[in-house]
Amino acid sequence: MNHRLSPRRVLVLGGTGFLGSEIAGRFIEQGSSVAVLARHGPTGIKRKKLRTADLVLGAAEDEEVLERGLEDADHVVHALGCPLPAGSNGDPVDDLLQTVPTLVRLLEMLRRRPGISLTFLSSGGTVYGNPVKVPADESTRCDPITAYGITKLAAEKYIGMYSDRYGIDARILRISNAYGPLQSPERGQGLIAAFLDAARSGHGVRIFGDGTALRDYVTVEDVANAVVQLYRCSDGPRVLNVGSGTGHSVRDVLAIVGHVTGHPLHVDWLPERLFDVKAIVLDVTTLHQLIAWSPVPLEEGIPRIWNTWQSWSAPLGEDLPL
Amino acid sequence: MNHRLSPRRVLVLGGTGFLGSEIAGRFIEQGSSVAVLARHGPTGIKRKKLRTADLVLGAAEDEEVLERGLEDADHVVHALGCPLPAGSNGDPVDDLLQTVPTLVRLLEMLRRRPGISLTFLSSGGTVYGNPVKVPADESTRCDPITAYGITKLAAEKYIGMYSDRYGIDARILRISNAYGPLQSPERGQGLIAAFLDAARSGHGVRIFGDGTALRDYVTVEDVANAVVQLYRCSDGPRVLNVGSGTGHSVRDVLAIVGHVTGHPLHVDWLPERLFDVKAIVLDVTTLHQLIAWSPVPLEEGIPRIWNTWQSWSAPLGEDLPL
Repeated sequence: MNHRLSPRRVLVLGGTGFLGSEIAGRFIEQGSSVAVLARHGPTGIKRKKLRTADLVLGAAEDEEVLERGLEDADHVVHALGCPLPAGSNGDPVDDLLQTVPTLVRLLEMLRRRPGISLTFLSSGGTVYGNPVKVPADESTRCDPITAYGITKLAAEKYIGMYSDRYGIDARILRISNAYGPLQSPERGQGLIAAFLDAARSGHGVRIFGDGTALRDYVTVEDVANAVVQLYRCSDGPRVLNVGSGTGHSVRDVLAIVGHVTGHPLHVDWLPERLFDVKAIVLDVTTLHQLIAWSPVPLEEGIPRIWNTWQSWSAPLGEDLPL
Repeated sequence: MNHRLSPRRVLVLGGTGFLGSEIAGRFIEQGSSVAVLARHGPTGIKRKKLRTADLVLGAAEDEEVLERGLEDADHVVHALGCPLPAGSNGDPVDDLLQTVPTLVRLLEMLRRRPGISLTFLSSGGTVYGNPVKVPADESTRCDPITAYGITKLAAEKYIGMYSDRYGIDARILRISNAYGPLQSPERGQGLIAAFLDAARSGHGVRIFGDGTALRDYVTVEDVANAVVQLYRCSDGPRVLNVGSGTGHSVRDVLAIVGHVTGHPLHVDWLPERLFDVKAIVLDVTTLHQLIAWSPVPLEEGIPRIWNTWQSWSAPLGEDLPL
């Protein structure tokens, strides 16, 4: 297997977001110079994490901004458009226009700048749709049932085409349901943050369906760790699942949150939604072959967030103190 | 199997194009009222074919134009963006912006107007990419290698999502390489038109690769026939291949053209292009189960075009006389 050093300079698109900021921080820890492209600067804890990063403020849709971000970079992490998969069904045209053309523009730039490699964060939770079997490996048929999943799949196909045709060194990571202390429950980011927040504030939660829906939860720290390690092993397949490999139902999460917080949640059970995948768990056999991978189990990950939150005195989310 | 009558009123998007005009004409023959949405009115022979069609002039990207076209329609045929697959690699961002958002906007409209069904012309020649085996059936993995194929695949996925979620009655036809007398060699539409035109004018032709590339050629009349027949059988799978089911190499076409025209072509052999699929032939087993399907073989189809052209005194293409 071929190994390479950490990148000299990484551009993280969406680098102030939930996944992007963790990945940017991890590259900084590994000694890379990091540029972060985002509409707004980081706030709260993210500001601390990204202290030494160069900020490129603006929209990635703006070619000039993107060009600026690419200066001196030898690696790009595309972490745009990850936070709110469910929201993409509100205005599918707008969602499409905001995501895929920007990616294709980036590919056009990379094609003209040999030597910049790409890590693209795709969505393991949505590109497969309702897979014929779980866990789903990378060769499983992709049949997304949400606009979000369709845009991610289209992006993957463009990346494949550009890589084959122009030799762009690209890797597509199909990330499962990432969770972590910086998810914002107010913005609807993630079941775990929403449940913990409800426990903390004494509110009930709404669950669509009967609570048997299976998901593959992985901590944002484990995802960042995988991104950094995978950069270093430059061979292996182009498309890789990144997840825990274990399925948990909504009821499992409910039980763990109740146990950890000591506040069993009141649940408002609602009819299932057509656009919710019934079961998705990622087969991570190939990931295990490429990197050291021992993701934190949910039973440990949830209490970690709870304890982190307890240690903070300020309100949650974007406005956390340094 | 469920059968239904011809549609009362059909809107054909791209209805003055090569495929669209043939389909519109066929629906008129079947007694449907037809509206044709296109940027420009039909010319030459197409004008005759579409004599009784209502013209809705404008861009399908314009929601108001699209709304106007949909008035009173109970069926829509989407035949936009078909003519120049190779061209889509010139500006992939522009290509994307011109195609997929328009389709999604149309789906949003259909969702709000129950009772309008959709036939979408996808591209059997490009959505599969280089399939693992030929002939490729509908369950073959879709791995397009051109921007054109990627936009068609993304469109298919959106149609699937809208159909499942909102009950839109939609059919996706993966058309193989359609050919016919109204293809314009000047605009690069199709190998057969280009070869026949070269024979007619005494020019040579340029062939990329060694001439072994396999394609599934089908006449535009057979395609229009399939579209009309498939409308009437309202069940069967959502995605269907429409092709001859037979593969012919570029050398086969060359030989037939030489034989038919009596002008063996001078060939300028050029290196193969990365974005040309090596072999694509469609498995049309399911199509045969649904409709009466006996496509014209290439050995008959090519002389028919040649004879049609001979019967015309005017220059070829868009400017043909009535």
